[in-house]
Amino acid sequence: MIRKSKKEIHPVKSAKGGAKQFNRARFPSELRLGPLSEDWVLIATGRARRPETFKRNRKKDYIPPKKFCPFCNIKSENPTLVSVKGRIRKDKKIPKDWTVLVVPNKYPALIPSPTLKERVEGFYRIKEGVGYHEVVITRDHQRQMGRFSKDEIKEVIDVYQNRYLDLEKKPFVKYVSIFHNHGPEAGASIFHPHSQIMAIPVIDPDLNKAVMNAKDYFKSHRKCIYCLMNEWEKEKGERVVFENKEFLVICPFISKSAFQMIISPKKHLSRFEEIGEKEKEYLAEAFQAALGKLYRGLSNPSYNFYLHTAPCVNKNCESYHWHWTILPKTSTWAGFELCTGIEISTIEPRQAAEYLRKQ
Amino acid sequence: MIRKSKKEIHPVKSAKGGAKQFNRARFPSELRLGPLSEDWVLIATGRARRPETFKRNRKKDYIPPKKFCPFCNIKSENPTLVSVKGRIRKDKKIPKDWTVLVVPNKYPALIPSPTLKERVEGFYRIKEGVGYHEVVITRDHQRQMGRFSKDEIKEVIDVYQNRYLDLEKKPFVKYVSIFHNHGPEAGASIFHPHSQIMAIPVIDPDLNKAVMNAKDYFKSHRKCIYCLMNEWEKEKGERVVFENKEFLVICPFISKSAFQMIISPKKHLSRFEEIGEKEKEYLAEAFQAALGKLYRGLSNPSYNFYLHTAPCVNKNCESYHWHWTILPKTSTWAGFELCTGIEISTIEPRQAAEYLRKQ
Repeated sequence: MIRKSKKEIHPVKSAKGGAKQFNRARFPSELRLGPLSEDWVLIATGRARRPETFKRNRKKDYIPPKKFCPFCNIKSENPTLVSVKGRIRKDKKIPKDWTVLVVPNKYPALIPSPTLKERVEGFYRIKEGVGYHEVVITRDHQRQMGRFSKDEIKEVIDVYQNRYLDLEKKPFVKYVSIFHNHGPEAGASIFHPHSQIMAIPVIDPDLNKAVMNAKDYFKSHRKCIYCLMNEWEKEKGERVVFENKEFLVICPFISKSAFQMIISPKKHLSRFEEIGEKEKEYLAEAFQAALGKLYRGLSNPSYNFYLHTAPCVNKNCESYHWHWTILPKTSTWAGFELCTGIEISTIEPRQAAEYLRKQ
Repeated sequence: MIRKSKKEIHPVKSAKGGAKQFNRARFPSELRLGPLSEDWVLIATGRARRPETFKRNRKKDYIPPKKFCPFCNIKSENPTLVSVKGRIRKDKKIPKDWTVLVVPNKYPALIPSPTLKERVEGFYRIKEGVGYHEVVITRDHQRQMGRFSKDEIKEVIDVYQNRYLDLEKKPFVKYVSIFHNHGPEAGASIFHPHSQIMAIPVIDPDLNKAVMNAKDYFKSHRKCIYCLMNEWEKEKGERVVFENKEFLVICPFISKSAFQMIISPKKHLSRFEEIGEKEKEYLAEAFQAALGKLYRGLSNPSYNFYLHTAPCVNKNCESYHWHWTILPKTSTWAGFELCTGIEISTIEPRQAAEYLRKQ
């Protein structure tokens, strides 16, 4: 299993200088520690798969007919929000010309309540499932976000922001999770493109840890670690997939799976919900580039994307830096990942980025 | 989505007494916090699926021919270990009558080395991928562990223990991860039943956290929290799937997915590798019951199982309590799980246990 190709030698350049280099060619993998998550990932390129081999087999694609689609045939619902060609409205009924629609999830994992009871049972702390669970539906039955125009993506981002600003004020809401599942392997149970928003009464301990670590870093360095990481990535260039005036799209050095991407603002900002019109346009362009490259490069793979932003209840989060994570479903997290918490990526992020840049 | 059936009311009995009960019927879910992992899970029964609906569609099963199976046609390898009808041997060649075989993984994620170099690159700490990656193969091309006899499972457990005791002594090994992926949805890339062992040079921060929390609990209570949890589960009974003299199989109160099971010893022991012959026989019986019930109850679902035991390099772990986790692939962790770290289980663990007990 020892590979001798000189091409495989890792282009080591320690940013701190003086650190010993090692010959990456001897090893099929390396373990990398994330400074904010404090988790290891394993970049295992031992099987030396070419980027093209991650392409999805499109023969598998099955498109269920519109006739039975619950979103194409949506009628009776009292919509939470309606968008018509970029204009957000609060219609009581669904207008014929809707382009984006937000409705409560028909099978919610959380429901609103004026009270939230907690109890202890045995060794466990328990909270009632109080919160909000909404679905963001785009009009076309088949065309997914990877094939949207910039304006269409901007409209979805507008809706995300609008719902975020409303939901964060609701009682007991500690975090608003916005995410999108595309394709069966990524857990999308309905084919018709849609995102979900869940406003939940707890904060993920891992997000809390990242927020705290960002704060500690800021205290000791007077600089945001995410901003510095972005500068470092821009300088290196090899993991940059796309950039515009306001946003950077990279395949992160510590990728949790092959072709993972992160979209983050170049200017320091802890909260997604605070961005303005201009930034949303640049964000739409970055999203369009990232999702479009995935669509073309990996032949319409299944993927998830989700938002990490400073928790809405936590006022003291200025050192956090909001971002979107895009995770294509290029593999299954199996026994090793479940046992050790160490995710394996089977392609070097810089090779993934190089491939995506060309798409 | 408000369900009114009285049957749905959660049988609340606070072990600490005095805690307020709440009416589970009003909510489609509840959030539960694990005292050792410090993670939330969401038990979301809103869709009210009956246990039978989790059954796998067996029409999908495809059995690749033995002719092309890399494990059926294994010849040239220098085996790490061979077992013949329960007797472990160190043959230099693979004997014709082998029943269990251990070989190095042909595409290892980690490889042995007399040195382990570390470096810093940018903001990241990096270690060479030094370690061991082995495959444990059972003879039959098709028959999986859920259909093994007690003696056949005992033989596999013997092999796991034997390899563990050898690998934990190797240089740079900090944790020995033993796991098994069954079925394509669980990430098994080769059909022929096999387990994997990876000896790695780091310890999962989450395992470290659980070890520390168990230690803290022991310090303040003079008792092992896992032992107390087992006693609590035995007393309640509703989540117990199977038990014998030495082992308890439960669907844990904080299940990460539907039909999750944990097999743990009734007697306190921090290290799997220290168990004796009698205990291994009882463990084999518990495994046979758990995997057999899954096989029958959910029609041969895909699943992962993996071992958590006190890290081999950490000598001061007496308060940890080793156990196996079995995770059937009943759903896909999608955007919400990836975003928030909160896993959703769509069946009450006590209902899952009730169903599995009957199988």
